[in-house]
Amino acid sequence: MLKTEISRATLGRIPTYIKYLDTLPLDIENISATSIASGLNLGEVQVRKDLAALCGAGKPKIGYRRLELKKCLEHYMDNDNGNAVIIGAGKLGRALLDYGGFNDFGISILAAFDRKTLKAENTEKGKLILPMSDLADFCRKNTVKLGIIAVTAESAQEVCELLYANGILAMWCFAPCRLVEPKGAVIRYENLALSLAHLKMQIE
Amino acid sequence: MLKTEISRATLGRIPTYIKYLDTLPLDIENISATSIASGLNLGEVQVRKDLAALCGAGKPKIGYRRLELKKCLEHYMDNDNGNAVIIGAGKLGRALLDYGGFNDFGISILAAFDRKTLKAENTEKGKLILPMSDLADFCRKNTVKLGIIAVTAESAQEVCELLYANGILAMWCFAPCRLVEPKGAVIRYENLALSLAHLKMQIE
Repeated sequence: MLKTEISRATLGRIPTYIKYLDTLPLDIENISATSIASGLNLGEVQVRKDLAALCGAGKPKIGYRRLELKKCLEHYMDNDNGNAVIIGAGKLGRALLDYGGFNDFGISILAAFDRKTLKAENTEKGKLILPMSDLADFCRKNTVKLGIIAVTAESAQEVCELLYANGILAMWCFAPCRLVEPKGAVIRYENLALSLAHLKMQIE
Repeated sequence: MLKTEISRATLGRIPTYIKYLDTLPLDIENISATSIASGLNLGEVQVRKDLAALCGAGKPKIGYRRLELKKCLEHYMDNDNGNAVIIGAGKLGRALLDYGGFNDFGISILAAFDRKTLKAENTEKGKLILPMSDLADFCRKNTVKLGIIAVTAESAQEVCELLYANGILAMWCFAPCRLVEPKGAVIRYENLALSLAHLKMQIE
């Protein structure tokens, strides 16, 4: 299956599946979706669908070869295309820069860039904050493929075009605005206010 | 329609619809979904579905009474149950506290609480950061209905139970963990790493 067709929810369960396979006794060579579902207390249909989408169907009555399944799942978490930069080192940019959870999904946020930064500095956790003038060089040297837009709505379009000019096609935009999307770019908008508003609605 | 059945996407378009109705000439009394769709460059089916879900069907050949429609839409954005607090005043908690976009959806983040805070302080934008010992009083006085969990995974369960004990049933959890959910609580997990991982997959 094309990676693009894999749902966010399925993707989110991969680390759980990998951890589970790691905890099995070493002499277990084959494992069925049914056993995994039962071990993880997940629905059997869900596990079966997830694994089929990610790694193809298992063999009837046998299931999956455990090591092959693990390798297949790990492939989704590898670090190809996983280098990211943040534009905007305000509170949100810095919070994302120091957030530890990205590594699990094969993503490294390497640095943040800010137009107010005049020379390189480090966050508490040792991550880099760099001047905007370093961006082009940095992206080329580190083959950065992901850009996080953490600037104001007014600056977001300019930042989007700058990232695009530096070969970054996948952007995650926290600014509350819609962008004119450069051709071939994939932009995900993160509307935090909307998430909370939707939650609020659940209790009304 | 029950508010709980309204999709996140539909909810997200409400401010757009309200703004559009506000820009119409004053003498326009009725407006059809078709006209709104065309004015906003949205699909007609989508607008029709949104408005039907939010405010019921319009009248054949006439559409909606403009002022009634506006009032209905605004009702979704009102501030009932919109008072929120954040637990955890680290970088993420502070970023959310000072983020301006919540007001559009009738949500006020009133304060953040942190166990490291010993006496009340203010952020740059004048928002309150308070000691944990003030939480119970504050929630009661301000009828807080939403809680944002911005602590570590280790502390999240304790915070969840504390919020619940203070009458907060809707929680938005940024900690990378699953919680044992108290009865009747509605918890939304925000997995930022997963969002970025899913975006990354789109370019592979």
